[in-house]
Amino acid sequence: MEKVKIVIAGPRGRMGKEAVHLVLQSETYALVGAVDRKYEGFKVGDLDGFPESDAMIYTDFEKCLQETEPDVLIDLTTPEVGMFHTRTALKYKVRPVVGTTGFSDEDLAELEQLCSEQETGCIIAPNFAVGAVLMMKFSRMAAKYFPDVEIIELHHDQKLDAPSGTAVKTAQMIADVREAKRQGHQDEKETLHGARGADYQGMHIHSVRLPGLIAHQQVMFGADGQTLTIRHDSYHRSSFMSGVKLAVDTVMKMDAFVYGLENIIE
Amino acid sequence: MEKVKIVIAGPRGRMGKEAVHLVLQSETYALVGAVDRKYEGFKVGDLDGFPESDAMIYTDFEKCLQETEPDVLIDLTTPEVGMFHTRTALKYKVRPVVGTTGFSDEDLAELEQLCSEQETGCIIAPNFAVGAVLMMKFSRMAAKYFPDVEIIELHHDQKLDAPSGTAVKTAQMIADVREAKRQGHQDEKETLHGARGADYQGMHIHSVRLPGLIAHQQVMFGADGQTLTIRHDSYHRSSFMSGVKLAVDTVMKMDAFVYGLENIIE
Amino acid sequence: MEKVKIVIAGPRGRMGKEAVHLVLQSETYALVGAVDRKYEGFKVGDLDGFPESDAMIYTDFEKCLQETEPDVLIDLTTPEVGMFHTRTALKYKVRPVVGTTGFSDEDLAELEQLCSEQETGCIIAPNFAVGAVLMMKFSRMAAKYFPDVEIIELHHDQKLDAPSGTAVKTAQMIADVREAKRQGHQDEKETLHGARGADYQGMHIHSVRLPGLIAHQQVMFGADGQTLTIRHDSYHRSSFMSGVKLAVDTVMKMDAFVYGLENIIE
Amino acid sequence: MEKVKIVIAGPRGRMGKEAVHLVLQSETYALVGAVDRKYEGFKVGDLDGFPESDAMIYTDFEKCLQETEPDVLIDLTTPEVGMFHTRTALKYKVRPVVGTTGFSDEDLAELEQLCSEQETGCIIAPNFAVGAVLMMKFSRMAAKYFPDVEIIELHHDQKLDAPSGTAVKTAQMIADVREAKRQGHQDEKETLHGARGADYQGMHIHSVRLPGLIAHQQVMFGADGQTLTIRHDSYHRSSFMSGVKLAVDTVMKMDAFVYGLENIIE
Repeated sequence: MEKVKIVIAGPRGRMGKEAVHLVLQSETYALVGAVDRKYEGFKVGDLDGFPESDAMIYTDFEKCLQETEPDVLIDLTTPEVGMFHTRTALKYKVRPVVGTTGFSDEDLAELEQLCSEQETGCIIAPNFAVGAVLMMKFSRMAAKYFPDVEIIELHHDQKLDAPSGTAVKTAQMIADVREAKRQGHQDEKETLHGARGADYQGMHIHSVRLPGLIAHQQVMFGADGQTLTIRHDSYHRSSFMSGVKLAVDTVMKMDAFVYGLENIIE
Repeated sequence: MEKVKIVIAGPRGRMGKEAVHLVLQSETYALVGAVDRKYEGFKVGDLDGFPESDAMIYTDFEKCLQETEPDVLIDLTTPEVGMFHTRTALKYKVRPVVGTTGFSDEDLAELEQLCSEQETGCIIAPNFAVGAVLMMKFSRMAAKYFPDVEIIELHHDQKLDAPSGTAVKTAQMIADVREAKRQGHQDEKETLHGARGADYQGMHIHSVRLPGLIAHQQVMFGADGQTLTIRHDSYHRSSFMSGVKLAVDTVMKMDAFVYGLENIIE
Repeated sequence: MEKVKIVIAGPRGRMGKEAVHLVLQSETYALVGAVDRKYEGFKVGDLDGFPESDAMIYTDFEKCLQETEPDVLIDLTTPEVGMFHTRTALKYKVRPVVGTTGFSDEDLAELEQLCSEQETGCIIAPNFAVGAVLMMKFSRMAAKYFPDVEIIELHHDQKLDAPSGTAVKTAQMIADVREAKRQGHQDEKETLHGARGADYQGMHIHSVRLPGLIAHQQVMFGADGQTLTIRHDSYHRSSFMSGVKLAVDTVMKMDAFVYGLENIIE
Repeated sequence: MEKVKIVIAGPRGRMGKEAVHLVLQSETYALVGAVDRKYEGFKVGDLDGFPESDAMIYTDFEKCLQETEPDVLIDLTTPEVGMFHTRTALKYKVRPVVGTTGFSDEDLAELEQLCSEQETGCIIAPNFAVGAVLMMKFSRMAAKYFPDVEIIELHHDQKLDAPSGTAVKTAQMIADVREAKRQGHQDEKETLHGARGADYQGMHIHSVRLPGLIAHQQVMFGADGQTLTIRHDSYHRSSFMSGVKLAVDTVMKMDAFVYGLENIIE
């Protein structure tokens, strides 16, 4: 079987570095090029901390596509650069797998349209951790049967915002399907302010911050005599790579536009 | 809206008692009769420890069906009695919801055939705990993406068999879909025999027994940099009632035969 | 060895009933009497739902002490009645084990004084669950080495107040020993109000409420690269009985006044 | 206040590297030298991946002690080298903090004798993770009140041996104090061999191995109506550094020999 030819944009970022390792270690992928702001003319293997690789680094994205003729672009850059890369890749019928968050609704609509015109598959995934995506998907499924739910997310104490983006996303996905309700006893009262956490349409969200922790979330459902708990623990950013792999393998088999890994997971 | 008319077989058993409470407390159900080995001529409300109810107790099942004309039979008896009740109910086009385990494959085939002939819905569920059913369903889904899985089940120390039936059922459901693999390091060795638990097609199952515990199970999936955990805690047999309710509501809307609550959960 | 002769005050309450079972099932204890507001002249075994027992029920506490000459009084009544019982028992040199909460500081001072004068042991314990007491004790010990701590308590959704009394007590015990600090990133901000829980001297407390849950608490400590978690799950009020037993056995060997089970646990 | 002058032996090992960072980042410690098999004449700051530091590297340990006159030696080498370093340091009245495991009983006896003669403190700690040490200490305390206990340890699937050394050590510490008992139902039987885990004097130990996991252990105690769980999660080897710091601060205040961090934790 021929290997899938891949170009990686943003190889020196934290995610990009992991993606380079993923592709180089795979027996079914071939790294044919990389796109960076600098290091034109260098090879990926020349960069500090990278394994051996003859794949060339390009600063000119179109030149990269023309010379390397990849099947797939893995883009792990910024929203602005990522949008340009994705649009351009589709014009060349190269299938984009994009980990960039922050695309606007217009961006997404434009890309969907372009996919359709070019009959080329494209996957945009704000979260590549398959475990986290399954946690959210299962939570949405469970909420139909267990309308009482609380979310506890736990992160290291250098995190600035609470609750986490994943917790809010989970709550939104649950809110889409569960019957609306205000949880807890109707007369419950906080003797210490904030004890019951944040309220999201009647659900409660709790944010724990401690040194040592990495990124964890637990969704608890309760009903008469039982609880159901779905928990994801992320220990290392390598957790994202199984999702990138799934997206690459899936994008090779489809012609449509997909937003969110949950839509390619059955 | 008219209430669903329900007959309960086995009202004095532990599950049956819970079912009586469920039906009497519901605003959409009406308890129209009960079937017992004794207490002919008594009312359900006459029994010790039961709430007020005028529903009559019958020892003759057919007479009960003829006089009370129920929509649904909730059967929580033994396999032998349950089979007779289910078969009979279908003949009267009464929809059975049966919590009895232990039906043989021939029994199930006969009932499926009868459902089809009578165009009457029937649900047989070995496990009515919706949370446990979802845990198994989610585990099967996750195993497609996470082939490394271990099951830890925890029960009170009066339990005789290890692993639990639910743990084995979960492992079977996972084995149906995951790519076969032997887990752990290929050179791993036990310095204390049994430490790595039971082996089920390469998966490991661990059975914890402690006083105080009730019935708990945790299914852990691992992959690079992340783990996904699905856990069900059963604290009280009232946990089964949400499943009975779901089955009653579903059986009223369908004409087919269903085995296993997982098949009516989306 | 002679059995410890015990009188139980409040035998028909939920805790009292458990205590009666504890004493009757023990091979080292003898139930010699019970004190109740009514049922004078009845035997404990005459009461509905109680096992066989010839121990007499008294409405007059002094008469009970005079006729039954117990070694120990287990008092599970109200603060007012409990104070009268405890004071009276000490005068008769009967050792009280009291589960009543709500004694005032003056009450406690008076009882301590009386113990000393009478050279009779007495244990007052607001919480008899040994596991909960150990959780609090361990948390206080750990806080010396791990000043970053968050408390998550989880209860059924019929509970009115948040956080639970045990959570607040735990936070107080930790605050006594840990170096004062405000936890989390100094610039952290809540995008949903309340997400970070209640603040108790820089510690955060989170209260989860779900149907199905009983009474659970988890104390998490974090430091560079590690977390330490201490968790107590209370599934049933029988959990209190191991503490009552410990208190009875201990009170028989001492002449002093003790407040709090943590002070007789090493 | 004068800074504690520290020499580190084994600075290039994984633990040694962490220790160099710890000392250089501290405001109360000064790194005055390092001992290595090579790099004589270099500075610590010259080594790849190390922060700036003028501390000299020595291959001759005695010369290092003579020229740098440290207060404390942190030794993170092998048992053979570590024994030589510790013995030599004590002769110079330099206080050793040694993370090496594998000293023989004679080695330990000799070092204790030497400490006593030299009136110089010395701490040998097979495990510097304060959280893990507390977990073991608390487990031993809890076992007095909860004789029913099971240990679940969870590690990445590249670990060769099961159960882990920490799990066995924990079981030993518990066995020292708990009343001997065979746990579980007396008639319990395994339908899948190994399900109940390893048996250590009646306690059961379960070893979970999954990719993604790092190093985790949970000790569960059960009694009527309750469970108590003590869990340690180690996410990164930096977890050892709080223990090294505690040992350095403690060894400066004492003249005795201590084996095991648990003996300097109150």
